[in-house]
Amino acid sequence: MSQTQKGNAVIGQSGGPTVVINQSLVGVIQEARKVGHIGRLLGSRFGVRGIVSEDFQELNDVPVELLERIAQTPAAALGSTRDKPDAAYCEKIFASFAKNNVRYFFYIGGNDSADTARIVSELAKKSGYDLAVFHIPKTIDNDLLVHDHTPGYGSAARYVASAVLGDNFDNRSLPGVKIDIIMGRNAGFLTAAAALARRNEADGPHLIYVPESPLTEDKLLADVEAVYAKHGRCLICASEGIMAPDGKTWTEKLSSGLEADSHGNQQLSGTGTLGDSLAELIKTKLGAKMNKKLRVRADTLGYPQRSFPGFASPVDAAEARLVGRTAVQLSATGARGGSIAMRRTSSSPYAIETFLTPLESVARLTKHMPAEFLDGGNNVTPAFIRYARPLIGDLPVVGSFDELKAT
Amino acid sequence: MSQTQKGNAVIGQSGGPTVVINQSLVGVIQEARKVGHIGRLLGSRFGVRGIVSEDFQELNDVPVELLERIAQTPAAALGSTRDKPDAAYCEKIFASFAKNNVRYFFYIGGNDSADTARIVSELAKKSGYDLAVFHIPKTIDNDLLVHDHTPGYGSAARYVASAVLGDNFDNRSLPGVKIDIIMGRNAGFLTAAAALARRNEADGPHLIYVPESPLTEDKLLADVEAVYAKHGRCLICASEGIMAPDGKTWTEKLSSGLEADSHGNQQLSGTGTLGDSLAELIKTKLGAKMNKKLRVRADTLGYPQRSFPGFASPVDAAEARLVGRTAVQLSATGARGGSIAMRRTSSSPYAIETFLTPLESVARLTKHMPAEFLDGGNNVTPAFIRYARPLIGDLPVVGSFDELKAT
Repeated sequence: MSQTQKGNAVIGQSGGPTVVINQSLVGVIQEARKVGHIGRLLGSRFGVRGIVSEDFQELNDVPVELLERIAQTPAAALGSTRDKPDAAYCEKIFASFAKNNVRYFFYIGGNDSADTARIVSELAKKSGYDLAVFHIPKTIDNDLLVHDHTPGYGSAARYVASAVLGDNFDNRSLPGVKIDIIMGRNAGFLTAAAALARRNEADGPHLIYVPESPLTEDKLLADVEAVYAKHGRCLICASEGIMAPDGKTWTEKLSSGLEADSHGNQQLSGTGTLGDSLAELIKTKLGAKMNKKLRVRADTLGYPQRSFPGFASPVDAAEARLVGRTAVQLSATGARGGSIAMRRTSSSPYAIETFLTPLESVARLTKHMPAEFLDGGNNVTPAFIRYARPLIGDLPVVGSFDELKAT
Repeated sequence: MSQTQKGNAVIGQSGGPTVVINQSLVGVIQEARKVGHIGRLLGSRFGVRGIVSEDFQELNDVPVELLERIAQTPAAALGSTRDKPDAAYCEKIFASFAKNNVRYFFYIGGNDSADTARIVSELAKKSGYDLAVFHIPKTIDNDLLVHDHTPGYGSAARYVASAVLGDNFDNRSLPGVKIDIIMGRNAGFLTAAAALARRNEADGPHLIYVPESPLTEDKLLADVEAVYAKHGRCLICASEGIMAPDGKTWTEKLSSGLEADSHGNQQLSGTGTLGDSLAELIKTKLGAKMNKKLRVRADTLGYPQRSFPGFASPVDAAEARLVGRTAVQLSATGARGGSIAMRRTSSSPYAIETFLTPLESVARLTKHMPAEFLDGGNNVTPAFIRYARPLIGDLPVVGSFDELKAT
């Protein structure tokens, strides 16, 4: 293929931020420069929106020094979107692709973004437009089917485990009940990562609640009471998506109960709602039962989970770069598209390999925590710890006077 | 003084955690070993409580390797308390001190802890008990009078500036209004530190609200609207203690307004309340005015500000160690007590020296942000940036495609 015949490529980023999403972007840019089969490499601003509006960032000549800084920067450097294109939207995308001779489309995102990639790919085939579409995985939720795990998860898990590690010492120094609400509407992987903070049996988190294990008010209160009786304190980590046995989320239940408040609006749909409500529940019900002033606090860990800088998991950062490079390598060998997945080839020492899986195998679908990772409705198993530990890197070094007793 | 005549010492930790409070503890232990004028060095568990119950951790022989790990560990390694001793409580403290031949008392904490130290010191004098009492400063609020700044602040400020740095990129990639609620009930130093995240005029935080500058609903809404019109997004950092012009905190106002809700309880007194309420206010009032679906989110940064591990400011960690060592050195030279303060001897390059200030000059009192640090009720001045920048260490490296335009 001569230089003038080279197809151009568009790369876009989509969905919620991670701290390594730009590692994948830079992986694509680096590999495209190395392989040389792509003509112009265009960064689409704000996901698919930038394709339609032809709002492109030229990526062929960005200095390496800047790229390496961008790779370490949280959140989509090109901008993101939650747009999901329909057929009419796709027509506009193809018009832009045709006009700019775009033959490769790389889309970095989660299962919604994989679905966008699938729609674009299928409509391209139908309309006879020659286009290779690659989904490059990214989600802190770790909820993509087929994928052993997803770039973005390891760093978010590292943040969560570290925050909870610190919070465990905070809770030791001023004992009480502490609740940390952790991201994950449908899958509990990120909340479960809090378990990596434990060094021994007395350490928190003492209770871990994920959406996969339905939780009743009675169980929560009984759990907290038992832990408090044993340790004189209790550190709880709960997913924002924890469910009641009827399949409704706790947040839905709390919100619907509060629609009838004096303000007539859904004020409790904000981010602190669930944590505050759990704190109030425990304070009221257990405080009364235990006949004392129970110290109960709640934090909702919030956006730092997905965008705290300078604290990425080195493994996660390297893998995010790798899947970006792999997508470009595959595009050069004639592959027509798919999602770049990782497979664990060895647990000890930890090792992975990449492979291509059809977009349909990932799009829209949500992977939940398997039963082998869940224990008793309030904990995770050693199998989960073995699964997650290699993904987060070393946690901060800590120490305690308790170690003197242990020896 | 012969070995048998050496007085013993008690060290305790008090108040809310910081990530460097154990640096001060280890500084005391190290210096006591070096100087040798102290007999037994006893760590009081859970502040003054451990003195009364004689719950002591022997510190003379703790291995250095463990001490260095404890120094890097967030929150009081000896345990903390919010107890404030009265005369009767102090009687029990002296009984314990006398029984254990304690002649030096080191207390690490904020202005409440300085007040405890003052009370103990004064009652010791009155009762003719020979006791040197040293307050070793620690507070993320940075609100001690006389002190240029306090150990614990630099690391909390580093966390806040970093979280907001990441959140700014998050907000760029998915534009909208984002509110971050930052610790600081009475003083705005920690919230103000968010300004250190800015690299240029377009960067957030675009609005900074501190307790020292009263804030009306009208001003908040006008500010947000103006920023949104200019940047298409708005990142707000507000102290948990922001005040209305009548001197009441916003949280008080919101809570009192909500006591009348359908549940009949103060459910909005939890930690996410203020952020959620501000988000609701902006969404309702501005969303209607701007005639579109305004994306508004709120995070309450919570305990990670005071206990996130592995991310301390190196300057802060070194200074926390230094004030601990200085307290012991002064105790060896015959000083009878006081609070160990820092004075800035040079701004460029940054340099400090320690000095002793009377307990009364620090106890109970709160330092507020001076007028020269405040700008227009929604920002901080370059003078504040110059003051705070040297305290937090280097922020994480980041980069943006915008830099290409700038050159």
